[in-house]
Amino acid sequence: MNSFERHRPRLSQASRPLTVTIPARNEHGEEVPTAIAGENPLTIYVDKRELVTLMTLGARPEALTLGWLLNQRMVKNIEDILSVQVDWEVEAVSVTTRNGLDDAEKKMSTRTVTTGCGQGTMFGDLMEEIDSVALPATAQFSQDALYALLAEVRAYDSVYKAAGAVHGCALAQCTPDGCEILMFVEDVGRHNAVDAIAGQMWLDGIEGGDKVFYTTGRLTSEMVIKTAQMGIPVLVSRSGLTQMGWEIAKRVGITMIGRARGKHYLLFSGMENFTR
Amino acid sequence: MNSFERHRPRLSQASRPLTVTIPARNEHGEEVPTAIAGENPLTIYVDKRELVTLMTLGARPEALTLGWLLNQRMVKNIEDILSVQVDWEVEAVSVTTRNGLDDAEKKMSTRTVTTGCGQGTMFGDLMEEIDSVALPATAQFSQDALYALLAEVRAYDSVYKAAGAVHGCALAQCTPDGCEILMFVEDVGRHNAVDAIAGQMWLDGIEGGDKVFYTTGRLTSEMVIKTAQMGIPVLVSRSGLTQMGWEIAKRVGITMIGRARGKHYLLFSGMENFTR
Repeated sequence: MNSFERHRPRLSQASRPLTVTIPARNEHGEEVPTAIAGENPLTIYVDKRELVTLMTLGARPEALTLGWLLNQRMVKNIEDILSVQVDWEVEAVSVTTRNGLDDAEKKMSTRTVTTGCGQGTMFGDLMEEIDSVALPATAQFSQDALYALLAEVRAYDSVYKAAGAVHGCALAQCTPDGCEILMFVEDVGRHNAVDAIAGQMWLDGIEGGDKVFYTTGRLTSEMVIKTAQMGIPVLVSRSGLTQMGWEIAKRVGITMIGRARGKHYLLFSGMENFTR
Repeated sequence: MNSFERHRPRLSQASRPLTVTIPARNEHGEEVPTAIAGENPLTIYVDKRELVTLMTLGARPEALTLGWLLNQRMVKNIEDILSVQVDWEVEAVSVTTRNGLDDAEKKMSTRTVTTGCGQGTMFGDLMEEIDSVALPATAQFSQDALYALLAEVRAYDSVYKAAGAVHGCALAQCTPDGCEILMFVEDVGRHNAVDAIAGQMWLDGIEGGDKVFYTTGRLTSEMVIKTAQMGIPVLVSRSGLTQMGWEIAKRVGITMIGRARGKHYLLFSGMENFTR
């Protein structure tokens, strides 16, 4: 889609301060100024109806809101969103749609609390949908590209380095010449970070088929499902994985790599699409 | 309460296998048998009504179910629960109550998705309730007791050591003679682990006032709120904390210690109740 034609909702730009410094005391009784991550409730209202309260660092609240609505399958087209306005004074974001939400009533009536950092995804629906996700079966990835990606991630300035207690996610594009990080989002919940990236991709009309998704967090079922929903065929994590995450990755054809730090990693799926 | 008088619901004993071993491949192209954590959907039905699906390791599904209902404030008294029956064949737990749930309809209509590993806690309600939580203001904790606790935790056999990708929580009792771990629960979501401990405490009628709560996970708002709800005045984590976690801990008078590993730690709140 031509960027001139692309619809953009009216967005606020309401990023929060990400860390504060508090006085802690160490094992020697010394006062140690310690940076800690912010955590803010953000209640999503859609057409004046309260839907959910997310706890967030607040770095990318507009993209987070869009990504949450997308990943919950509440809205299908970005054209249906007229505006996303965050107001931290009242800890709320007001979303205005053209025609209301799809099935919000039904979707809110049961909920799945997902593993690590759940966001109440409708698990059954997603598992039905997952088989219709089309990933490019021939997306190739290599050890050189992986090492380039890890070097880029290390170089990134982050709240984690300053304060810990956050998870980071990155969307990257790797070519034979190296890897470029297109977005890097941290949040107190890793699913907020992935939702914010999904929201930004949706907003900018970015396709996932030639991208790589990196996360500091664990590869649980929901993380793998969201990666598949974004259409991204390669998923890399600094951490480990769960059995269900592994099974879904194999089912949808994601190349999945865990425990990736420095020059070490474990390849868990997609052996046929990975070159060492 | 005398244990002879204490009501116990009829409980299944349906723990799942906790890890499976899969073939991964390392950076040298070698096949490495790798243990990974199980992750299972468990749908909670109360009096035949579907409430929620939790993604869980499945170590303590009955205690998890009870703790979830308790921490969501769906049930107030253990006497109201007649039975908790887990059936992994259908990935469901069936709870039977004496008189139905309190306000389940209302509680399910809005939800808060909590930071790290959310379980849709009704955040607003909890923040109102938190001021009525009575913690023993004079509960003392010491560096010696902390080191004893950390040594006990290290010695614990764990899924984490085998497979990673889980969080652990422990309920401990510390005396001048040392620390004893009363319960240790791991789960793919750290809020499942804390809910399972809350459920087991509820089941066994264990008071929190003279206990210490340990978690490998981050000290976000929800973790601190749940510790306060369990009536436990001391909270220790291997990880960091968020600003809201810190503020709530100060407000309710929890002694909070983070980044606790080996002989290192940071004391974040409750300086007046801690002896070095």
